[in-house]
Amino acid sequence: MKPTLPIIPMILSRRLRASPFETRVTEQGVKAFSLYNKMTLPLVFDDLASDYEHLHSHVQIWDVACQRQVEIIGPDALRLVELITPRDVSRCEIGQCMYASLCDENGGIINDPIVLRLADDRFWLSIADSDVLLWVKGIAYGRGFDARVFEPDVSPLAIQGPKADDLMSDVVGEHVRDIRFFRFINAEIAGTDVVLARSGWSGQGGFEVYLQDSRKGSDLWDVFWDAGQKYNIRSGGPNLIDRLEAGLKSYGSDMTIDSNPFEAGLESFVSLDKEAECMSHEALQRISKDGPDKKLVNLVIEGAALGSPRSVWNVLDSTGEIAGIVTSQAWSPSIQANLAFAIVRSDQSDPGTALVVDAGGDVRTAVVRNADWTLP
Amino acid sequence: MKPTLPIIPMILSRRLRASPFETRVTEQGVKAFSLYNKMTLPLVFDDLASDYEHLHSHVQIWDVACQRQVEIIGPDALRLVELITPRDVSRCEIGQCMYASLCDENGGIINDPIVLRLADDRFWLSIADSDVLLWVKGIAYGRGFDARVFEPDVSPLAIQGPKADDLMSDVVGEHVRDIRFFRFINAEIAGTDVVLARSGWSGQGGFEVYLQDSRKGSDLWDVFWDAGQKYNIRSGGPNLIDRLEAGLKSYGSDMTIDSNPFEAGLESFVSLDKEAECMSHEALQRISKDGPDKKLVNLVIEGAALGSPRSVWNVLDSTGEIAGIVTSQAWSPSIQANLAFAIVRSDQSDPGTALVVDAGGDVRTAVVRNADWTLP
Repeated sequence: MKPTLPIIPMILSRRLRASPFETRVTEQGVKAFSLYNKMTLPLVFDDLASDYEHLHSHVQIWDVACQRQVEIIGPDALRLVELITPRDVSRCEIGQCMYASLCDENGGIINDPIVLRLADDRFWLSIADSDVLLWVKGIAYGRGFDARVFEPDVSPLAIQGPKADDLMSDVVGEHVRDIRFFRFINAEIAGTDVVLARSGWSGQGGFEVYLQDSRKGSDLWDVFWDAGQKYNIRSGGPNLIDRLEAGLKSYGSDMTIDSNPFEAGLESFVSLDKEAECMSHEALQRISKDGPDKKLVNLVIEGAALGSPRSVWNVLDSTGEIAGIVTSQAWSPSIQANLAFAIVRSDQSDPGTALVVDAGGDVRTAVVRNADWTLP
Repeated sequence: MKPTLPIIPMILSRRLRASPFETRVTEQGVKAFSLYNKMTLPLVFDDLASDYEHLHSHVQIWDVACQRQVEIIGPDALRLVELITPRDVSRCEIGQCMYASLCDENGGIINDPIVLRLADDRFWLSIADSDVLLWVKGIAYGRGFDARVFEPDVSPLAIQGPKADDLMSDVVGEHVRDIRFFRFINAEIAGTDVVLARSGWSGQGGFEVYLQDSRKGSDLWDVFWDAGQKYNIRSGGPNLIDRLEAGLKSYGSDMTIDSNPFEAGLESFVSLDKEAECMSHEALQRISKDGPDKKLVNLVIEGAALGSPRSVWNVLDSTGEIAGIVTSQAWSPSIQANLAFAIVRSDQSDPGTALVVDAGGDVRTAVVRNADWTLP
């Protein structure tokens, strides 16, 4: 049974920016897009389930140019990055990526980018779907920091799947196998400079290739496409089933400005004792002490395959009270169950808790699971 | 001949927010959406040209909930609004709307909202497509201003077209005919409080009704839908043809952070001599003195009807040099011409200037027109 997704016809004006890889993606017969940071994000090429099967067996090329970069450079660059995230970025080495939530003065999550440290005084925030550029520019202006904040011409292309290492070493050289998780090197591919990181938004491993000249999108694509033929390469995109199975949370769906890192299960990325000034420090101290009111949990919804929620799916506790909402959901072919993320009251968040989900009128029993989907 | 638009299938996740009017819009058989502030914006119900014809003759109801509000409230609210726009907001009375560009310290346009003054110390910025919330929150935090900045539960519904006054007076009362352009009143419709403004993103006049409780979307819609039957009401949306004819510029297409108000033809909304502190003042003084390098102009492209640009359409001067790009374009049935906005070098911006447009390989002659599309 194939999960269904709500799909609508969308008009592409120039306001919704074209990716440098859009020509190739269109030629590949993309079936459905999302829109992310006002840029197209190709999601489905065959269908969700068969894209997922292929991703788990071979290698895929993904247009993730919509993961835009916010560059922060200058004498106050580190001070500025430290201010906006509770993560201890002073420990981030040059050549390292760090997953970090950006939090406001109430502890609310503004975004959850990957921070890449390019130099002592130069960072990229590789962002999820919100205007981090404006947020960081506003704070830098307000505080009078000596740092330039802008969106550079940088567009990531992801190579994901179990054969990603083989493909990447054919293209760039055997040394890419030694790149550790969340580390990056500089390389040249298709005659253009790229940053090459071991990272990516799937559970299958691989690389993200940061193109730094949008005119070279098709050239870069073609190098991987041609070299990937022997590995049965296909076009793909961040896959809903894979991300649920892998526990990858999506900003805007599973967390928002109304969430905080303790609610979202990101407490391991919070350093309340870091030395640098941090705007969310005080609020997060308080939430850490009191505990969050709500928690983002893994939930298995019982019964036949459900689609993906567009409307609000309420989660009810055993007394019938509303305990929260479902934030993401997909049918998993490997676990043979409906996997959901849900934000629920903390007193209903322990693995094993029995709940009820009202999936648009289709009322089902559900159970909170561990983060790896096992039962306690 | 009907203009063509690039349309793609888009997956609606919960990250792309539902409007309170989405149920009704879907029932009305919307044919194509755009996405705006991460919310659906219904654009086409029949086709562009017949939606346009109807808008010019009758009355339409538009789901423009995506024009989100940023509320600024508190002792420093006015000081904060003054800081972020070069417009003199001290002159904005309670009950008044003001079109204002928000500009950064380089004069770059961050957004071009309508400012509504609700009280001495309370404003809504009714925004175009960029995260003004994060921009203003960041500046307020950085400067330590005493003002709360948040997105309230407010969703505009537009009633546009020549019969809008008749419909609105049937629903609310004859006194709505006396609401002046860009003024608003408080009213109750469908048992819920609304702000009712004479404004809207068409050249045909009408109202915007700011719903303040998203649970009442269908109720509010139904009141206008039922009362509008005698006026041949239809669902519609901001219409590309109408906006080109009316000279309405779209943030993200016709201006961006790389534009400034002098380039975008918005100099009449800049008060360089206002008393309050303004972050863009210095940069705009300089641009005003030197003149902008580029200008946004009206351009008629000759020959048969063209579609809407997705790729870059270069504008060339008489020597074949690139002079700029087309930012928006539509075929006008009433003027019987291709109407375009283009950003061109200032030395090529005088009405009457002959240019050439490369519309994706279809090379045409073009002439700069006056703002009302006449020739000089």
